[in-house]
Amino acid sequence: MRRYFFFLFVLTAFAMSGQGYFAPTINSPEIASNGAVTFKVKAAGADTVRLIIDSRMDTLMKHTGNETWSITLRDLEPDLYMYYFIVDGMKVIDNENAQVLRDVKTVMNTFVLDPQGDCPVAVHDVPHGEVRAVWYDSPTLNAKRRMMVYLPPGYEQSRQRYPVLYLLHGTGGDETVWLEQGHAAQVLDNLIAEGKAEPMIVVMPNGHTDTHSAPGMGPNNNEQPTFAHKQWMEGTFEQSFNDIMSWVDNNYRTRASKRYRAIAGLSMGGYHSLYISVNQPDDFAYVGLFSPAISRMDQGKCKIYDDLETKLINQFKQRPRLYWLGIGKDDFLYKDNAEFRKMLDKNRLRYTYHESGAGHEWANWRDYLVIFTQQLFK
Amino acid sequence: MRRYFFFLFVLTAFAMSGQGYFAPTINSPEIASNGAVTFKVKAAGADTVRLIIDSRMDTLMKHTGNETWSITLRDLEPDLYMYYFIVDGMKVIDNENAQVLRDVKTVMNTFVLDPQGDCPVAVHDVPHGEVRAVWYDSPTLNAKRRMMVYLPPGYEQSRQRYPVLYLLHGTGGDETVWLEQGHAAQVLDNLIAEGKAEPMIVVMPNGHTDTHSAPGMGPNNNEQPTFAHKQWMEGTFEQSFNDIMSWVDNNYRTRASKRYRAIAGLSMGGYHSLYISVNQPDDFAYVGLFSPAISRMDQGKCKIYDDLETKLINQFKQRPRLYWLGIGKDDFLYKDNAEFRKMLDKNRLRYTYHESGAGHEWANWRDYLVIFTQQLFK
Repeated sequence: MRRYFFFLFVLTAFAMSGQGYFAPTINSPEIASNGAVTFKVKAAGADTVRLIIDSRMDTLMKHTGNETWSITLRDLEPDLYMYYFIVDGMKVIDNENAQVLRDVKTVMNTFVLDPQGDCPVAVHDVPHGEVRAVWYDSPTLNAKRRMMVYLPPGYEQSRQRYPVLYLLHGTGGDETVWLEQGHAAQVLDNLIAEGKAEPMIVVMPNGHTDTHSAPGMGPNNNEQPTFAHKQWMEGTFEQSFNDIMSWVDNNYRTRASKRYRAIAGLSMGGYHSLYISVNQPDDFAYVGLFSPAISRMDQGKCKIYDDLETKLINQFKQRPRLYWLGIGKDDFLYKDNAEFRKMLDKNRLRYTYHESGAGHEWANWRDYLVIFTQQLFK
Repeated sequence: MRRYFFFLFVLTAFAMSGQGYFAPTINSPEIASNGAVTFKVKAAGADTVRLIIDSRMDTLMKHTGNETWSITLRDLEPDLYMYYFIVDGMKVIDNENAQVLRDVKTVMNTFVLDPQGDCPVAVHDVPHGEVRAVWYDSPTLNAKRRMMVYLPPGYEQSRQRYPVLYLLHGTGGDETVWLEQGHAAQVLDNLIAEGKAEPMIVVMPNGHTDTHSAPGMGPNNNEQPTFAHKQWMEGTFEQSFNDIMSWVDNNYRTRASKRYRAIAGLSMGGYHSLYISVNQPDDFAYVGLFSPAISRMDQGKCKIYDDLETKLINQFKQRPRLYWLGIGKDDFLYKDNAEFRKMLDKNRLRYTYHESGAGHEWANWRDYLVIFTQQLFK
């Protein structure tokens, strides 16, 4: 009798959608214990089916009969992956996998490959921190703005004060992207549980001042994510950063001093981190530039971009506890970064340099976060 | 020069994905100021293209040339919508719309239709509450479990205590679904801003005790959402509910008494709300049953399901301030609910009944939330 009720329930809920919850389905992606991953898609009558794995792979799938196309990959590194299919030129997601993420405007499926149970971006059975979506007041921008805050496990139960990492996104991102594509909460949960990172608050604001939140969270309900922001590295975010810092120090039990404050970001967020920290030399003892979008054409655009070299020399007079720079060998910003390093070297400004493989991509940024956060507040 | 840099940036980031961010694209969905919505999809060589709007519509689209299929709908009510396309039998999402939601395992695009600016589920320019993803300890289940908490605007800045609404999901949902498909945070923000609802805390736990969180948030990283839970309405959630209530009363500034506590849920969550409130008659002055999955076959399954009628009579001795029951005319649970109402009537137990159109679907549940929350804590 209960079975009957259950079946009715399901049938009715999905009568119109054509989704067969009890029909035998293909299983995709299928992840073997040795880490091999098999992708499958039903595409009757298709000529070509491709598998796209974020910025890492674009490969043809094989027609393996019964309307199904598939491919098995055996050499993927433990990490978070995003993927989709292209069936005869049309982008489709994997309907067998309900876990999806968005890269700028492209919705993709996602999975975590963790065959050894030690991938730092995977969810493990450890204490989890709290994630909050908050709206802070920015008097400088005359706006209420949204940001995400990670509080370490035990924050609510303790009376302790915690150090703060400000973690900034790139041009295509928003306040959610370090949690979504970056798995920042999982990384911190895992590193803190293993004693590799200090318990810390992580603050993830929205770096685009022409918008106040991720698409869908603001009054323009149906806004689409875009690269083409009206305001873009023109100084307003950096100039309003103190609004964020005071809000955070007023609302959380922070250790509100340079010694316990870090700032890091990827791409545009690395650029923001560079200029915020250099203009506020008394605020950050730790700076992380992840594939930073460093350009040399910023003189005159806004006073905060002027006299970078002089300001850096001043910032480094009180030597930062960590000035960390990471970039991939194939990053299109590699040359700009090499010039920036040359300038630091010329002035004997001491930094930590991490050169990885690959390019301007999340596989690197997740990795940099894992490396960088272990060196903070110690 | 900056344009060139920007262009390089975009090119590189998407070189492999084939996504043309600067290519002219079709705009879908296109929402006219009069509320007409035009959907478009490029599907070269397709025979049939259908548009599926959640549980509300399944219709053919027209081939309007240039590889594009489209349809304009002029009579949609203001609400949140979810949709996808079926191209020659294959489900595809609208690649022009990066806003997506998930209904159980089906990923769909979403948009909010709000031509008059008064749709209560839309984001409006009003103060926004805070949304937290927290992990609470359940000694009864011997588990750390995830839940979502909405705190009303001003909570962090005030010293006030607030009433609490416990808001429960259905069989296909998890702790996130009232925020995602239900837009509960937007509904509360709007009603509180208009003075129509009292500022309240809304607690959204996970009602499936065979899992501790939404898929992707637990150690089985690649878990898929399902209807087919191993534990399902067998008493464990209801029996562990006090763990949630004590955690909430210990961690938030609640008004921790019956007068300021409500419980409501949809479908399975309505069933949970019925049995939790009837077994804890001193805890909830307000009960909301939204299309509740009421069945009469529960005697003997678990003691909390026994003697419902006697327990209800006892619960109603101290008359609830609101006992609210809502269901759609076409709901497959209509008959079960009619029998339940007959039993309440026979015993002269006074409740508020709301009969809507349509069936077992989110359009109703969002509406019921709007109606129900305005009657709480007054």
